[in-house]
Amino acid sequence: MIWFEDFTVGRVFELGSVTVTEEAIIEFASQFDPQPFHTDPVAARESSFGGLIASGWHTGSLWMRMYADTVLAQTDSRGSPGMEQLRWWAPVRPGDTLSGTTTVIAANPSSKDPTRGTVITESAMTNQDGVVVMSMSGRGMFGRRPA
Amino acid sequence: MIWFEDFTVGRVFELGSVTVTEEAIIEFASQFDPQPFHTDPVAARESSFGGLIASGWHTGSLWMRMYADTVLAQTDSRGSPGMEQLRWWAPVRPGDTLSGTTTVIAANPSSKDPTRGTVITESAMTNQDGVVVMSMSGRGMFGRRPA
Repeated sequence: MIWFEDFTVGRVFELGSVTVTEEAIIEFASQFDPQPFHTDPVAARESSFGGLIASGWHTGSLWMRMYADTVLAQTDSRGSPGMEQLRWWAPVRPGDTLSGTTTVIAANPSSKDPTRGTVITESAMTNQDGVVVMSMSGRGMFGRRPA
Repeated sequence: MIWFEDFTVGRVFELGSVTVTEEAIIEFASQFDPQPFHTDPVAARESSFGGLIASGWHTGSLWMRMYADTVLAQTDSRGSPGMEQLRWWAPVRPGDTLSGTTTVIAANPSSKDPTRGTVITESAMTNQDGVVVMSMSGRGMFGRRPA
C-alpha cells in the first residue's frame, strides 16, 4: 500500500507508456470532442494542425488510466478536488507513444479529517521524441497510514 | 458562424444538458479511470462517496461534447492551449442531469497570427438540483472574421 505518508515531496512515479492509435483518437473524439481535426483525417490535413490530433481530454484520460493503474490502485484514494494549469503543449498524433510521470510537490494532512491528507502533484505526458505534450498540477486525497 | 470578434466579454453560451447513466459512468471509468467508486456499484457503497460516482475526466469530457456541439461547431476552432482551476465540487451520480454554461471572460487578438485570437472562458456544469459539480477556466483559439 501507498499511504498519504508515503507521498514524500520530490518522489517521482513512473506511470508507464501507451501508444495512441488513429482508431482510438477517432473513437474518443467521436464520442466527446467531435471537431474535424480530431475525427476526420482528411479534414484534419487541411486544418492548422496538418493532420489528425488527439482531443486534449483524451490525452488527459490516458494519463488518468496510467496513474490509476500504477499509483491509485495501491492507495486508499478518496478522490480529487481538481487540477491547476493544465497545458496541452504539443499535438498528439496517431502512433505517438506517451510516457507519464507524476511528481509529489506537497502533502498536507487534512484539518477536518484525521484519516486523510491532500497530495499536490505535477504530472507530464511526454512523447517518443522527448516532447512534453501535456502537463498539469493535480490534487488528490489519500487515506493515512492506520495507527 | 461565430468568429473571434463575436466572443464579447460577458457573453454566455447555454450548452444544453445531458443525463449520465450508471452504464455510461462504468463504461468510461473502465476504460480510463478504473477506481472502484467509479466502476463497481457495490464497492462504491462502501467508499467515502457512499455510491457510484462519475470520473472527473468523464464529467469534463461530457462538457467538451456539449461545447463542441453548441459552440465550436459554428467557429473556426484552432484548438486550446489549456485550462486553469478545474474544480470537481460535488459528485456526479447515476441519473444526474448536467447542464453546461460557458461565459466569455476575455478575448485577445494574437500578436503572432493576425488570423486568430484567444478567448478565455469560465465554464460550469450544474446538476438538476442546481449544484455546480464542476467548473473551470479554459482558453481557446478562434479564427477572426475575414476582412
